[in-house]
Amino acid sequence: MTYPINHWYVVANSAEVGRELLAQTICGQPLVLFRAEDGTVVALDDRCPHRNYPLSAGGLLGDEIQCGYHGLRFDSRGTCVWVPGQERIPTRANARARPVVEQGVWIWAWMGDPSDADASRLPATPWFDDDSWAVAHGMEPLAARYGLLIDNLLDLSHETFLHGGYIGTPEVAESPITTEVDADAAVVRVSRHMEGVECPPFYEKSTGLTTPIDRWQDIEYHAPGYYLLHVRVAAAGVSPSADGSDADAAHVKVLYAITPVDDHNTLDFWAVCRDFALHDAAIGDFLATMNREVVLQDVKALSIIEQRLGDEWSPPEVSLKIDTGGLAARRVLEALTAG
Amino acid sequence: MTYPINHWYVVANSAEVGRELLAQTICGQPLVLFRAEDGTVVALDDRCPHRNYPLSAGGLLGDEIQCGYHGLRFDSRGTCVWVPGQERIPTRANARARPVVEQGVWIWAWMGDPSDADASRLPATPWFDDDSWAVAHGMEPLAARYGLLIDNLLDLSHETFLHGGYIGTPEVAESPITTEVDADAAVVRVSRHMEGVECPPFYEKSTGLTTPIDRWQDIEYHAPGYYLLHVRVAAAGVSPSADGSDADAAHVKVLYAITPVDDHNTLDFWAVCRDFALHDAAIGDFLATMNREVVLQDVKALSIIEQRLGDEWSPPEVSLKIDTGGLAARRVLEALTAG
Amino acid sequence: MTYPINHWYVVANSAEVGRELLAQTICGQPLVLFRAEDGTVVALDDRCPHRNYPLSAGGLLGDEIQCGYHGLRFDSRGTCVWVPGQERIPTRANARARPVVEQGVWIWAWMGDPSDADASRLPATPWFDDDSWAVAHGMEPLAARYGLLIDNLLDLSHETFLHGGYIGTPEVAESPITTEVDADAAVVRVSRHMEGVECPPFYEKSTGLTTPIDRWQDIEYHAPGYYLLHVRVAAAGVSPSADGSDADAAHVKVLYAITPVDDHNTLDFWAVCRDFALHDAAIGDFLATMNREVVLQDVKALSIIEQRLGDEWSPPEVSLKIDTGGLAARRVLEALTAG
Repeated sequence: MTYPINHWYVVANSAEVGRELLAQTICGQPLVLFRAEDGTVVALDDRCPHRNYPLSAGGLLGDEIQCGYHGLRFDSRGTCVWVPGQERIPTRANARARPVVEQGVWIWAWMGDPSDADASRLPATPWFDDDSWAVAHGMEPLAARYGLLIDNLLDLSHETFLHGGYIGTPEVAESPITTEVDADAAVVRVSRHMEGVECPPFYEKSTGLTTPIDRWQDIEYHAPGYYLLHVRVAAAGVSPSADGSDADAAHVKVLYAITPVDDHNTLDFWAVCRDFALHDAAIGDFLATMNREVVLQDVKALSIIEQRLGDEWSPPEVSLKIDTGGLAARRVLEALTAG
Repeated sequence: MTYPINHWYVVANSAEVGRELLAQTICGQPLVLFRAEDGTVVALDDRCPHRNYPLSAGGLLGDEIQCGYHGLRFDSRGTCVWVPGQERIPTRANARARPVVEQGVWIWAWMGDPSDADASRLPATPWFDDDSWAVAHGMEPLAARYGLLIDNLLDLSHETFLHGGYIGTPEVAESPITTEVDADAAVVRVSRHMEGVECPPFYEKSTGLTTPIDRWQDIEYHAPGYYLLHVRVAAAGVSPSADGSDADAAHVKVLYAITPVDDHNTLDFWAVCRDFALHDAAIGDFLATMNREVVLQDVKALSIIEQRLGDEWSPPEVSLKIDTGGLAARRVLEALTAG
Repeated sequence: MTYPINHWYVVANSAEVGRELLAQTICGQPLVLFRAEDGTVVALDDRCPHRNYPLSAGGLLGDEIQCGYHGLRFDSRGTCVWVPGQERIPTRANARARPVVEQGVWIWAWMGDPSDADASRLPATPWFDDDSWAVAHGMEPLAARYGLLIDNLLDLSHETFLHGGYIGTPEVAESPITTEVDADAAVVRVSRHMEGVECPPFYEKSTGLTTPIDRWQDIEYHAPGYYLLHVRVAAAGVSPSADGSDADAAHVKVLYAITPVDDHNTLDFWAVCRDFALHDAAIGDFLATMNREVVLQDVKALSIIEQRLGDEWSPPEVSLKIDTGGLAARRVLEALTAG
């Protein structure tokens, strides 16, 4: 197994990165993250080029990071600016700097060749910076290969069994899906529109809607590491207006950033954005707690599968219609990894 | 190293298996065990054929087991009877069922091809179901390859050093043995008859006999996984009658089922059957406690050897006369594994 | 990676070895150590040749070690003198004995072919047995390859950054070094003489000297496993007399024995010998505590590097002038290992 590296991945939640050095391994590559004095985020390879000590075990002198072993210093571009015992600084004595973009609550880094970094390919997450949306978010470390989380998120029929009492109801597993693939854009779309169905606690307690509801799930998976679920819930029979306005429905954007740590570990960043109860802290706390529990249910289940799979990369499987989206996502990922 | 799989192995103690799903790995194969509503024991491969989630992490609906991830259901023969999102059930979507026999306190499963299962090759354990015998039993997980336990049990001279104060006395190590091999039946017999020797606490406190005693140890090892030690202890000089009756002696059958978990782990099932003090609970408790401590002494010693051996399968060794039985057992096992 | 084995290595501190069996793995070889009744130290391979049980899990009968599994007994030369169940002792049933020399607080063993053991190549440690020196010493297990500790000790510029507040001052990293290699003797010498510099707490509190001082560091590394740092500290401007006497300076010999356990673990034996305050227990305790803390700072840093390196044996590196001694040590070691 491997992961495509010429891509943007979320490497940290914004609030985690400050003047304390933060170590984070992404796509097998140890990084050290910190905020420069002007507030911009810096990401360097977390390895002193001299004797391999992690830079994250050293300290900051202004915007310079100093190795804790022999004192080499690097500026925020990773250029070595001081070595002990000599004036001349070897040209190779640098720590690679990663292109970084901070966008709302997430910090993205480009994990491939820095000269290939393409800001236009950065996924848009406008809800983080829009006053008409409120955000709850978090991150859970997942002891499983990232492909298992992609399988999981592309097939929401598991909500019925793994997340019953939270977001799962019998209708999710039973309702048909439609799947579309845009291979050029590396995007897979999976939609499930349910009419007149049970309202799960996740939406009942946050929106006040009660059974029956219309519940739409429209997934966009942007390979390799970004997943967006558009949710629309409304009283059964209430449709959007002809002009597209939809004031009588509640809308939720459930975002996941799926970031490989290594072949057997993943960072599972999640965010729940809502366009209702914007200033109701209790509902914000409820959705944060509820979604974190749902994420932890997935984390537990996927880590059990990972332990069973071990170093097996193509385990035997029988696929069903519900797997159409997940199988499409795998093909898109394979093309990215090979490409 | 490997283990012969076309054989019966004990996979659980009878009392462990009920309406809670029990996960147990045998010969590298994860199994899920449960009791159907009619009381019969079911053993299925513990893997949902859809996406590899362990069935043991799901639940029971009557006699059907339901996967906890996407809800697939399997009947007690492992046939898939429901999948989410579609009517047609893929033909390959089954969980292999293992032939199972419950016999007294032990549950045996056939670990090879189910169609080869041969009930006539199941070892007989009549003492479990005979009112003239009382049984104490248990199981200890052993972090060592199963061959080390077979070596251990086939050479009881170690009782003197590892189990002194329990069942070991100086005479065990010093008394000669006789060894017989029945290669066709895959049985090795080792006998040690000691006359006028010290009575160890294990027998002194349970039978009331005191030094000197006659003590017979007659081992039958049925490769690969069943071991039976016939013990006869009597006051020194007391022999069985000419007609075979032996009312003045105490008899014990010490049974072991030796079940490989994987290359480095083993289940060490044990039972002590006696034909005396049948209704004396204190003596039953004493023998259970004593034998468990003896088993734990072996478990500790063998796990130390396993740690030293690591992935070495044919470590250097110097063999002695006492190893005749163990070496014969290895040859029988090699033939079964190759066969 | 590997280690040269035809050499003497320190295997234990003298006080650790008595009538209790001590298990210690050296150069990948498990050893059992004990003191015979006449006080001499015995080192045998910690493996019963019969069935691989560690002899260290057995016991002593006088000067004989008895296996705890089947009772085989070995004398202090490793010759088997008793086996169970037979009179004849197989000729191969021996535990290899290692040549051992006890010298002051350290016990050395020859890890290569015993017949090659050459006492003349044993490093001299005269300060351990000389009343004009006082000794503080200890050992810390290090979860890192031994080469990382050799790198560390040959380049003391790291004292400034890793051991600030203990023995590091800014001048250590900034002062030039001289390096000499005696390839035939497998000795590398690195010297750094600092004049009029800051006195670190380690020397200030033990000698009473205050800034500024003259501070000399003269390293002798005797590959593979012995390191000797000659330290001279004196008030700035105080030089040794023309006749070599140097009564107004304080002298410290900092000794390290660097003993590979396996590819990823090392025993870090250390000793601090001083020619001042010989009978001042408080100063002895201070130096012991202080040096142990310095050793633990190295242990922590090197184990972090080891975790990062994993199974990588030639990680990318950029070397500096300060590495001249360490690089010379690596070349000497490579020649020893290949030779």
